Amino acid sequence: MSGLFITLEGGDGAGKTTQAELLSRWLGERGREVVRTREPGGTPLGAALREQLLHGGEVDPRAEALLYAADRAQHVAQIVRPALARGAVVVQDRYIDSSLAYQGAGRVLDPAEIREISEWASRGLWPDLTVLLDAAPELGAARRAARGGSADRLEAEESGFHRAVREGFLALARNEPGRFLVLDAVLPVAELHGAVVARVAGLLDR
Amino acid sequence: MSGLFITLEGGDGAGKTTQAELLSRWLGERGREVVRTREPGGTPLGAALREQLLHGGEVDPRAEALLYAADRAQHVAQIVRPALARGAVVVQDRYIDSSLAYQGAGRVLDPAEIREISEWASRGLWPDLTVLLDAAPELGAARRAARGGSADRLEAEESGFHRAVREGFLALARNEPGRFLVLDAVLPVAELHGAVVARVAGLLDR
Repeated sequence: MSGLFITLEGGDGAGKTTQAELLSRWLGERGREVVRTREPGGTPLGAALREQLLHGGEVDPRAEALLYAADRAQHVAQIVRPALARGAVVVQDRYIDSSLAYQGAGRVLDPAEIREISEWASRGLWPDLTVLLDAAPELGAARRAARGGSADRLEAEESGFHRAVREGFLALARNEPGRFLVLDAVLPVAELHGAVVARVAGLLDR
Repeated sequence: MSGLFITLEGGDGAGKTTQAELLSRWLGERGREVVRTREPGGTPLGAALREQLLHGGEVDPRAEALLYAADRAQHVAQIVRPALARGAVVVQDRYIDSSLAYQGAGRVLDPAEIREISEWASRGLWPDLTVLLDAAPELGAARRAARGGSADRLEAEESGFHRAVREGFLALARNEPGRFLVLDAVLPVAELHGAVVARVAGLLDR
């Protein structure tokens, strides 16, 4: 029995947490060890960095990209690789595709450089499956408003940024159709869950 | 009048702070604006990262290298480049050579990769002059004991590590003799200062 690395991607409010929880329960019912985690912030070091990134002062774009990469290096070394080595399924909110979509497509940096740094950080660890919950920025904004959360720094960026992020995610999915499962986030929760587990079941049988 | 970027390198206890202060006073007496700074920790973000790096828990080697690079990106963008642009002299404790000597020579990572990440972080900014205060690890240890400071995480590493760092610094200096001024840190403070200002005077006259 070997481990499986599953990431969930998409804008804030797309439903990643809900689907990750449903998938984790489904895997647990099938007797698999599940490690639920996230980036940024999946380790003590990462939690400190996440606080700095989301609520600190002005951060230079390159410094920001390097902090996300540092969080990734620590998280992969401390959490993800050990879990995969003992055969667990890692179910993770956000990974390298978020770095590429947010930093590369949305910001001023070269996506190829972001990819290179992130691959160095993770020593080339890519997910077996990435579920992209695709949504118009307006859906995420409405859901965030509905749950009454306050906007952090990234969420407060204007909608043009969120549209660029969405396009970035979709471009990544087009380039790697074998790794991505792209789902329309406006579908009912149960329907999305069904599509996710259909794909995961196939991977577990491999 | 254009800016000048001067870095001081060497192990802890080699006398970097003393020489930086003497040089800054000398430059000030000649009417130059001086920006005294350091890495890691020269910005608010950097100070938080420095605390994490020196006194936090176990940090993965790649995460550590990326945190130093993030500190550098922020520091160069926020402090060093603006100072150089307005014609100031930046006098800085530690820069890219420390990353290369400590991370590359002393640790498990590929120095070429450390260099590449650091150059990306700084957008290729190299010092006009780097003063290497070369000392046997025993000198630094004795000076640290004399001033009664407690050992942080890096200082607590064993002496074999400090010897590898010293060799790393010397190798960097051999490769770039035009940028480096290598001084024997056991020389008297005034003599070292004289050698530093002789070189700096030449750069100011350019």
